[in-house]
Amino acid sequence: MGSLEHKYDPTFTERVIAATGPKASPRTREIIGPLLRHLHDFAREVNLTVDEWMAGVELVNWAGQMSNDKRNEGQLLCDVLGLESLVDEITFSAAAHAKDAHTATAILGPFFRKDAPHYPNGGSIIKTMPADGQVTYMHGRCVDSVTGEGIPGVVIDVWEDSTNGLYEQQDPDQEDCNLRGRFTTDEEGRYSWYCLKPTPYPIPYDGPAGKVLQLLDRHPFRPAHIHLITTHPEYMPITTQIFDDSGPYLTDDSVFAVKDSLLVHFKPRENDPKASLEVEYNFKLKKQPSQLEQGDEVTGI
Amino acid sequence: MGSLEHKYDPTFTERVIAATGPKASPRTREIIGPLLRHLHDFAREVNLTVDEWMAGVELVNWAGQMSNDKRNEGQLLCDVLGLESLVDEITFSAAAHAKDAHTATAILGPFFRKDAPHYPNGGSIIKTMPADGQVTYMHGRCVDSVTGEGIPGVVIDVWEDSTNGLYEQQDPDQEDCNLRGRFTTDEEGRYSWYCLKPTPYPIPYDGPAGKVLQLLDRHPFRPAHIHLITTHPEYMPITTQIFDDSGPYLTDDSVFAVKDSLLVHFKPRENDPKASLEVEYNFKLKKQPSQLEQGDEVTGI
Repeated sequence: MGSLEHKYDPTFTERVIAATGPKASPRTREIIGPLLRHLHDFAREVNLTVDEWMAGVELVNWAGQMSNDKRNEGQLLCDVLGLESLVDEITFSAAAHAKDAHTATAILGPFFRKDAPHYPNGGSIIKTMPADGQVTYMHGRCVDSVTGEGIPGVVIDVWEDSTNGLYEQQDPDQEDCNLRGRFTTDEEGRYSWYCLKPTPYPIPYDGPAGKVLQLLDRHPFRPAHIHLITTHPEYMPITTQIFDDSGPYLTDDSVFAVKDSLLVHFKPRENDPKASLEVEYNFKLKKQPSQLEQGDEVTGI
Repeated sequence: MGSLEHKYDPTFTERVIAATGPKASPRTREIIGPLLRHLHDFAREVNLTVDEWMAGVELVNWAGQMSNDKRNEGQLLCDVLGLESLVDEITFSAAAHAKDAHTATAILGPFFRKDAPHYPNGGSIIKTMPADGQVTYMHGRCVDSVTGEGIPGVVIDVWEDSTNGLYEQQDPDQEDCNLRGRFTTDEEGRYSWYCLKPTPYPIPYDGPAGKVLQLLDRHPFRPAHIHLITTHPEYMPITTQIFDDSGPYLTDDSVFAVKDSLLVHFKPRENDPKASLEVEYNFKLKKQPSQLEQGDEVTGI
């Protein structure tokens, strides 16, 4: 770094950091120094030109312009650079290494909707059945990571793509809220639903994230997966994905989200006229810290 | 870095970099490694959480959504972080330290327009005269940085704010293209025009750049300045700003663009009924490298 700083004004970055006023929050002060040092060191290390920087600005502005309530291109841009997976690891790593670890987490992705319909256990999230779909009975339990006891009343959000690789909000041929729903665990912590075996798909390729993949000579595909979120007033929420262990792209996911503990096996289902496959997945949930501790964790840049 | 990497998956960043395909351009490959290492190291160093990262994504999307042909909020966001001034220094530093150095450069800023009207020397760029405006006769020469000879035919773009601190495209009360114009140097390399003494102003404060300044407890003001661009087929273009040496914010410019060599003094003007002040500024221009060398420099991320 020494030689890089001497090539250009060696005081510049520290002057920009020092412009921060006394009323900036402690967390903002903690973040701004490393942010500016890494941003500026990056520019100096690669001798970033005005034209290259402006190409970056235009890429970022384009991301905002493409984003709306159904699409978050700024997020997708971070995803292809591995940043969402990394902050997911950072946020949940302390919990994940504890003895009473909860289920591993994975990125939210840009296709979650807060308004998915609520179904009873054993219900189906399939509203538009594709000709080549493989109906799967998915079931399992939510248990306390310490006691191992089933947890009633856990709400599980589930969403997935159809066999054409599209989520319902990307595809006018799918009924609204197709392949997404919310279920609540029963007295023993059990849940069950019918869904489709998920399909690998390319992330949207027509925006800045696609442009970055092209520039990097990378493919846009994600391995087949099902998105899940668990919520319960007394337990830490979990956002995760489970991956079909038989499919492609497990080692070269375009958004770097696969973890070994999230691989599941879809096996043939016997004696069920409604489904040809089944998959089991069990969640370990960890108790919430007290309300007071929680409040301390809430920060924003 | 070692300890930081061991706290989290130590192979993650290098795996993301290694995903880059063989057809990525040499310059893209040169940029992507440092970009990802600095981006990821920043997140690990500050233990960036999912919520903080998402606040950043929303800030960036907001920048794109606010940007249009009259406003570039992505650029402004970079400006308050010192990045535009830094890439300006990087791009022009080799030239600036040479013996035959051209005039120092400064950032373009977001208010340039390509379609400014062309005026003859001695003309005025004032189309809407504010009651408290101080008309200034600005003049000078463009000379070759090696021979010192005047250069005819240099086109100079000039633009500045009015006394309310607004550029014409920000202010419905100013006539279209008020306080901007293009002039061409005469046989001896001379130019002259009437303009206003510029006024310090806050950069737009209603978007993400303003939000960042608030979070950092920084003021949004820029010192009074006049923007200038010189272009000539045989000479390297120069984008710069000159600063009123008597005004405030010279040491705490919100976008870090002031350089000592760009300070000018506005002095009283005698015997000119059209202007009460005058300022002189001379440009040193450097010959273009050959077309071939130029072609090699053109890169994009």
